[in-house]
Amino acid sequence: MYPRIIGTTRIYGLIGTPLRSAKSPVLLNTLFAEAQSDAVCIPLEVGTGDLSGFVSGIRTVSNLAGLLVTMPHKQSMLDLVDVLHPTARQIGAINVIRCDSDGRWVGAVFDGLGCVLGMQRQGVTLLGKSVLLVGAGGSGRAIAFAVAAAGARSLIISDLDPHRALDLAQCVAKQGACVVHAGPADPAGHDIVINATPLGMNPADPMPIDAERLSPTTVVVDIITRSEPTALLLKAQSLGCQTLDGHPMHLGQALLALSFLGFEDIERRYSSGL
Amino acid sequence: MYPRIIGTTRIYGLIGTPLRSAKSPVLLNTLFAEAQSDAVCIPLEVGTGDLSGFVSGIRTVSNLAGLLVTMPHKQSMLDLVDVLHPTARQIGAINVIRCDSDGRWVGAVFDGLGCVLGMQRQGVTLLGKSVLLVGAGGSGRAIAFAVAAAGARSLIISDLDPHRALDLAQCVAKQGACVVHAGPADPAGHDIVINATPLGMNPADPMPIDAERLSPTTVVVDIITRSEPTALLLKAQSLGCQTLDGHPMHLGQALLALSFLGFEDIERRYSSGL
Repeated sequence: MYPRIIGTTRIYGLIGTPLRSAKSPVLLNTLFAEAQSDAVCIPLEVGTGDLSGFVSGIRTVSNLAGLLVTMPHKQSMLDLVDVLHPTARQIGAINVIRCDSDGRWVGAVFDGLGCVLGMQRQGVTLLGKSVLLVGAGGSGRAIAFAVAAAGARSLIISDLDPHRALDLAQCVAKQGACVVHAGPADPAGHDIVINATPLGMNPADPMPIDAERLSPTTVVVDIITRSEPTALLLKAQSLGCQTLDGHPMHLGQALLALSFLGFEDIERRYSSGL
Repeated sequence: MYPRIIGTTRIYGLIGTPLRSAKSPVLLNTLFAEAQSDAVCIPLEVGTGDLSGFVSGIRTVSNLAGLLVTMPHKQSMLDLVDVLHPTARQIGAINVIRCDSDGRWVGAVFDGLGCVLGMQRQGVTLLGKSVLLVGAGGSGRAIAFAVAAAGARSLIISDLDPHRALDLAQCVAKQGACVVHAGPADPAGHDIVINATPLGMNPADPMPIDAERLSPTTVVVDIITRSEPTALLLKAQSLGCQTLDGHPMHLGQALLALSFLGFEDIERRYSSGL
């Protein structure tokens, strides 16, 4: 299903580069079409140095109702919106902007909450769980805060750069929501293991964790959205683990972004189907 | 049929205000979908004072492949493109911009040629005909040049403002393609009568010509694109005249614009169906 585009259609741009593999336009346009919303999501490929020029120009478009923000603009966009949603302030990034009718742009980020919602929609709850998060980059940072806020008992953060892992662990620990430490990428003894590194995007990548040490009771989440399962997920499945690829997170993000953008009806429809 | 929008989809914006009644997105998107082109046309509502800011910002979008330009930007856009197609130089307006991969923007206008193509596609040829054109505004200006170039024997241009009619008649006469004069809106004795005024957009509008003086052999063209026939067309039909509303012109414009934008396949498919 695709939206019917007429003169009054509200535009939601996906801004970033490269966008060749972007999945948001198909997902959002399907949701818009199902809900018969007069809205469309289109890719807008903009390079790093062009962001502020793009923003000042596109602000003149009165039917631009929102932007989804992806690499490499998630951090630089912080300075170009008028209001930061608490999520954006906490995580220091933006993945969605609501263009209000008074001209104000409000930036938020739902990478982390979307991951948690995606897990919940697959029956995986965080409450009281011991979680290993591998990768303390942009996505990992957002997921760490959301996992802690969702009631995990403990969170170990691992990264190839131990300083980055330690820094993130200290930031999340300050929220006081759960016990957080930096540590090795050892899955043994954890209820949930989340890969938030890019390892697995290419078939030749090494594993982000020592998968031999997975227990069959561990849930393995890989946030990579490919059509084929990553090597990590294949190995985990062979050991009997429940696995989640990046699609539940992507849908979770989209539902939260849509709710933030004013499409509460779409978010409700999907949430009631939990 | 609607286009499937993915990360690589090329964007064709329709820029103007107001766009509530704009028909180009539906027409172009149907043509794109039929041709399975990875392209989409979206409305971008931009006000008068915002044009140059919009243009400098949107030039950063690397998958923006073209713009359709409508009121009130058709003249002001002349200063904001890099190259003027001969049609734009002649008529002093732009209704389509091709954004070339080297960053250059080429502006053209197909209002007039589109009207002639639309007439031809309905079996109405201009060669050797006596034509009355009512309305010497933006559309009328484009149509006058195209009618003369298509081989009309004579062209009378009428306007509520006689100076505007005279000025346009003199400009077109300079091309030397046909006999052109300013004159009254009297349809008697003409093979073809074209209404290029807005009269008829609202049901309460007076007729643009004295329709009682139409002969049944006269073809009456009204460029207004409404779903209901205008009073002029209804009267002409009641007298036995062949009539054309604005839709053939709109399709003719779209086909010429698509050919200019590189979609020669779409234009060929429709032209072969003449």
